[in-house]
Amino acid sequence: MINELDALRLIGERFSGSRNGVEVGIGDDAAALRTEPGKLLLVTTDCQVEDVHFVKSLISPEDLARKSVAVSVSDIGAMGGVPRYILASLGYTKREDGAFLEGLMRGFESAEEEFGVGLVGGNLSSSERIFLDITVLGFVDPARVVTRKGASPGDVIYVSGTLGDSALGLRILRKDGKGGKGGRLAERHLRPEPRLALGKRLADGKLATAMIDVSDGLALDLKRITVTHGVGARVGVERLPLSDDYRVLAGEYTDDFYGPALSGGEDYELLFTSPPERRGEIEKISDMLNIDITEIGDVSHNAELAITDPGGNEIALKDGGFVHSGS
Amino acid sequence: MINELDALRLIGERFSGSRNGVEVGIGDDAAALRTEPGKLLLVTTDCQVEDVHFVKSLISPEDLARKSVAVSVSDIGAMGGVPRYILASLGYTKREDGAFLEGLMRGFESAEEEFGVGLVGGNLSSSERIFLDITVLGFVDPARVVTRKGASPGDVIYVSGTLGDSALGLRILRKDGKGGKGGRLAERHLRPEPRLALGKRLADGKLATAMIDVSDGLALDLKRITVTHGVGARVGVERLPLSDDYRVLAGEYTDDFYGPALSGGEDYELLFTSPPERRGEIEKISDMLNIDITEIGDVSHNAELAITDPGGNEIALKDGGFVHSGS
Repeated sequence: MINELDALRLIGERFSGSRNGVEVGIGDDAAALRTEPGKLLLVTTDCQVEDVHFVKSLISPEDLARKSVAVSVSDIGAMGGVPRYILASLGYTKREDGAFLEGLMRGFESAEEEFGVGLVGGNLSSSERIFLDITVLGFVDPARVVTRKGASPGDVIYVSGTLGDSALGLRILRKDGKGGKGGRLAERHLRPEPRLALGKRLADGKLATAMIDVSDGLALDLKRITVTHGVGARVGVERLPLSDDYRVLAGEYTDDFYGPALSGGEDYELLFTSPPERRGEIEKISDMLNIDITEIGDVSHNAELAITDPGGNEIALKDGGFVHSGS
Repeated sequence: MINELDALRLIGERFSGSRNGVEVGIGDDAAALRTEPGKLLLVTTDCQVEDVHFVKSLISPEDLARKSVAVSVSDIGAMGGVPRYILASLGYTKREDGAFLEGLMRGFESAEEEFGVGLVGGNLSSSERIFLDITVLGFVDPARVVTRKGASPGDVIYVSGTLGDSALGLRILRKDGKGGKGGRLAERHLRPEPRLALGKRLADGKLATAMIDVSDGLALDLKRITVTHGVGARVGVERLPLSDDYRVLAGEYTDDFYGPALSGGEDYELLFTSPPERRGEIEKISDMLNIDITEIGDVSHNAELAITDPGGNEIALKDGGFVHSGS
């Protein structure tokens, strides 16, 4: 069991060094941050709850902490911003020990380095289930911020990377555990890669008219940048970018081949719209960052989502998306 | 049971009006806030977990939401700052219904008005127990910020209001329920009043050398502004400010008369140190704001906490304080 005062001291020691922009860090009532003039402050929060978002036996504490940060900074990237500070509010049960906390700390340290953020505050509570609630503060140029609103009919719909790997990976993890042939898919579930560089590049070039990260599944998140704002989306299911592992293994683990890609969730790829005349610039960014960016459809006038099969027939979705986390 | 999409829409409708400094509010990946040059950004997070920090049957959803904000903005006040924005990350179980969510929303709205903050973001998760994790962003003049570090030997130790009412009120609530003779004490537990105006006034006048809000009990929080930073504190137990209700009822509900005042927690009064020559100015602020401010002891060289009875004998504390929440 974790002794709270010891834990707070440990955390204070690990994350209290003097860091850029941090006037007062961990150990006081609040963190005090010097903010920059001419920048817009972005702030978002996301929570991982045991047995809702993760199963303790399937993820290491390092990966759990890193993932909790990754999914939160992903929201900053989806607005074209750069994450800077994080606060971690942790709930832990009587079952966790010092090694678990130590693992979380290593995960936070690795996330600090990987995503360029500093842990500046947080909270510890006992709880019946573990939770990690992460708040991220970031910055963006006010003239460059990309929101969920702004897609126009005729815009092309793009998505980065591949879809469905995480959801399929989770399915495989639950059935077969770690390792084995689904290893790369499981890895995408356990160690998602937020597309920070891509989000910033698209925002800097004013290339995206609307953007979101795919956390609740393509179908639901696509609605959030189209239908919610009065325009529609037409997507051909055969255009969805799928990994080789997905193509080989999906048939074995689900009856609904496109299901994980359409509504599986937790991809953390960027989904965005852009006028067709900017296509060449997007291809250049794709080459430069070595990230696949795929055209999956276009924005339409009618405020509805239409997903079609190769024969042009509309596909009825089994559900609206993988809803577990908020906005 | 709460349908998450409906809930998010409801929250978006309630908290999405255009507000000062909010460029993008609820409904996007992150909130985007215009920050002011020459101000220091303060950020803090605090969590209320069901059956750890509250029992659902003893607090209304309105009071629960209001209290979750009150205890978090209190940390901003304890640094001399002004709270401005909040994010609410909520966990809810299958047992909560629409009326519960509606009650929470009313509590957040009332907190917005009372504390001058705007709800700009958040998250919803299912959970086995309710939790409300509140992040607050606020601002303070960099030359005025008051931290936990700064008390010098010879400084006077002050505390606002009265101590122990909340802890005693909780004890009475658990035993006798609401209403009855313990009503005013229970009220202090259910509807704490963060000392925002006092904190700001003390900071503006550069009157406090160190300051904290009493959330985990006087003994523990006093250590945090003295012993933790290499100085000591001497407090006479007979000097602790106690309410009339406390004096009348404490003997009936506890064997340890001073226990709730010394280590009960959740007072949310301001505990601060100040040089003796500033005494007159502090009295003026006390008069002007109509808040009692009591001298309870002084800061000493020896880095230890000494609490004495009227005979001058040191009192051994039963525990170090009411530890449930982090820094």
